[in-house]
Amino acid sequence: MTQNQDIAKGLEGVRFTESKLTFINGQEGILTHLGIPIQEWAESSTFEELSLALLLGRLPNAQELAEFDAELKANREIPAQLQDVIRAMPQGAVPMQALRTAVSYLGLLDEQSEDITPEARRAISVRLIAQMATIIAAIQRAQSGKDIVPPRADLTHAGNFLYMLNGSEPTTEQARLFDIALILHVDHGMNASTFTAIATSSTLSDMYSAITSAIGALKGPLHGGANEQVMVMLDEVGSPDKAAEYINKKLDNKEKIMGVGHRVYKNFDPRSRVLRDYAALVADKEGKSTYYQILEQIEKTVVDRIGDRGIYPNVDFYSGTVYTDLGIAKEYFTPIFALARISGWCASVIEYTADNRLLRPSSVYTGESDAHYVAMQDRQ
Amino acid sequence: MTQNQDIAKGLEGVRFTESKLTFINGQEGILTHLGIPIQEWAESSTFEELSLALLLGRLPNAQELAEFDAELKANREIPAQLQDVIRAMPQGAVPMQALRTAVSYLGLLDEQSEDITPEARRAISVRLIAQMATIIAAIQRAQSGKDIVPPRADLTHAGNFLYMLNGSEPTTEQARLFDIALILHVDHGMNASTFTAIATSSTLSDMYSAITSAIGALKGPLHGGANEQVMVMLDEVGSPDKAAEYINKKLDNKEKIMGVGHRVYKNFDPRSRVLRDYAALVADKEGKSTYYQILEQIEKTVVDRIGDRGIYPNVDFYSGTVYTDLGIAKEYFTPIFALARISGWCASVIEYTADNRLLRPSSVYTGESDAHYVAMQDRQ
Repeated sequence: MTQNQDIAKGLEGVRFTESKLTFINGQEGILTHLGIPIQEWAESSTFEELSLALLLGRLPNAQELAEFDAELKANREIPAQLQDVIRAMPQGAVPMQALRTAVSYLGLLDEQSEDITPEARRAISVRLIAQMATIIAAIQRAQSGKDIVPPRADLTHAGNFLYMLNGSEPTTEQARLFDIALILHVDHGMNASTFTAIATSSTLSDMYSAITSAIGALKGPLHGGANEQVMVMLDEVGSPDKAAEYINKKLDNKEKIMGVGHRVYKNFDPRSRVLRDYAALVADKEGKSTYYQILEQIEKTVVDRIGDRGIYPNVDFYSGTVYTDLGIAKEYFTPIFALARISGWCASVIEYTADNRLLRPSSVYTGESDAHYVAMQDRQ
Repeated sequence: MTQNQDIAKGLEGVRFTESKLTFINGQEGILTHLGIPIQEWAESSTFEELSLALLLGRLPNAQELAEFDAELKANREIPAQLQDVIRAMPQGAVPMQALRTAVSYLGLLDEQSEDITPEARRAISVRLIAQMATIIAAIQRAQSGKDIVPPRADLTHAGNFLYMLNGSEPTTEQARLFDIALILHVDHGMNASTFTAIATSSTLSDMYSAITSAIGALKGPLHGGANEQVMVMLDEVGSPDKAAEYINKKLDNKEKIMGVGHRVYKNFDPRSRVLRDYAALVADKEGKSTYYQILEQIEKTVVDRIGDRGIYPNVDFYSGTVYTDLGIAKEYFTPIFALARISGWCASVIEYTADNRLLRPSSVYTGESDAHYVAMQDRQ
């Protein structure tokens, strides 16, 4: 009954919509947002500006950016009731489950949540972008048995997040390093979480439902989580002098090295170099952590041995160490991914629903035909 | 740059997986689960048995069904902490937002929630099927300022739900009518909410994430909500004697009549007749409500005028009145849809993830190319 050749497994290669946001050419290592290379965004822009640009579909002017930045700052606070919910969550909660629940709860507290006009979706997006930071920091603080740190309006989005997380102000370089890491993760085409957000909103459901779905999808180990595995590897290595031996052994045994190579980028990951360079700059200034030194040694060995085959460290390779050195526990790496990707999710949902079409693919039925209900006493 | 002919809009006609659960032939008005016609399920089976059959992929034997039923009953209670969360939700909360949040929160309280083995997914499904009823009833009670009614283990799934909702035991016929309504809504192929549940779990995310996503998708007006609109229509009509005039006017003006005709079923909706027949039986016994009498008159006019064109009342046409007469407010019709569909969602996620493939379709990039970042002072 089944005809395998007609099944688009994983929907691979199926193009279901148009988008003006992000372009990826994996062979040539190209990633652009609004046609502008990711390297230029990382070097010259901010998370705030890239977020607004994706929502607008173009670079903002000075006034638009100032207003957006003011809006974000004005919306950093989360409702007291949500803080109570976060504090009452069971100890040991999985951070992504806590985040999924908190964002869903935030929808209950937002009087505009049911409004699905483009204007409302945009206004809700601004609040979601601002409040994701506060929610994630609050979850981390509550789960560590610490007080929730209220946001400050005099810091950048990245700097304020690190402040709320650690309870102390980051240096300018640290805040900028984290800002770059966020920029690099804002959007990446039709990835599984963005697609899930679109699928949810294709029924004309609300923004909170779309983002809750996206968080649920990002949570899966096939999506987020690679940089967490890099840190597991660094812990296994233990010290910089053991890195070469560890990696050589892995390569000899043809084992996978976490954070090296990329499903999409067949030559190099355009995001990795800019993060590496800025991380090196901060390490030179603040001092190199043990993790950073191990990473340097692994990178050297990897590039020496397999760099000529086009297999290089990807962005996950560097981001884990960057986050760790900024005081972020590895259980929070996937929430940090959500902290960046929220802007891509929101922009993608707004773009798709502006010319909406309900997503309703088909499956091939391979079950029984012409069966009948059998009374219990007659069953085998 | 764009080639429209290559875009599978809405993924319509795209077959991305195999399934043995549900077969639909809209032209001939056929809906089967495991090859067995929906009419036979509705007439001879129960919500409990159909749920288990979908999880097993076959009809259960007597012992399996008895064990499953006992498991459902043993899991009806929801944790006290979740009851507190539901009680503390703001008054006027949208029921589907409350449901999405409560199910997400339930994941935080389930120690098995991160386990994605087929056995764990099945065990979690049993709890979710059982507890959806308790959660929905608790939300309705709390939002009405009433005490949450604890579940009873001596009633059927359908009967216990009505008991928890209304605080009084339904008649046997009422419980069976609601049971039939649940059976009719358990699964319907690759609909948008089931697809969203699959998309979320295709990253190997957990059951609670998948179901939270499905609730978010079902919430959209393009998916759930049609039967709610039927009740709006009945309120507009007002009394049975005004039905013919109201419908004739609509038909003369070529306006859409809610609950009449179906996107998939081009002749008749196989679910509608069985629900109509049992609803008539209960109405004869319990007395006909005004809504029921209006419905009868609308049906008569519709069948007389357009029945020969194959346009008949669908399942949503009858379910709204059935639910209303069972004491369910129309704001809870979509949660009731979720109460039934949870079994289809869970079975579909378990089936898909058993041979999982990450869902990652593509979009066609239609934005700018070769753009560059422009310093703020140089922007137009």
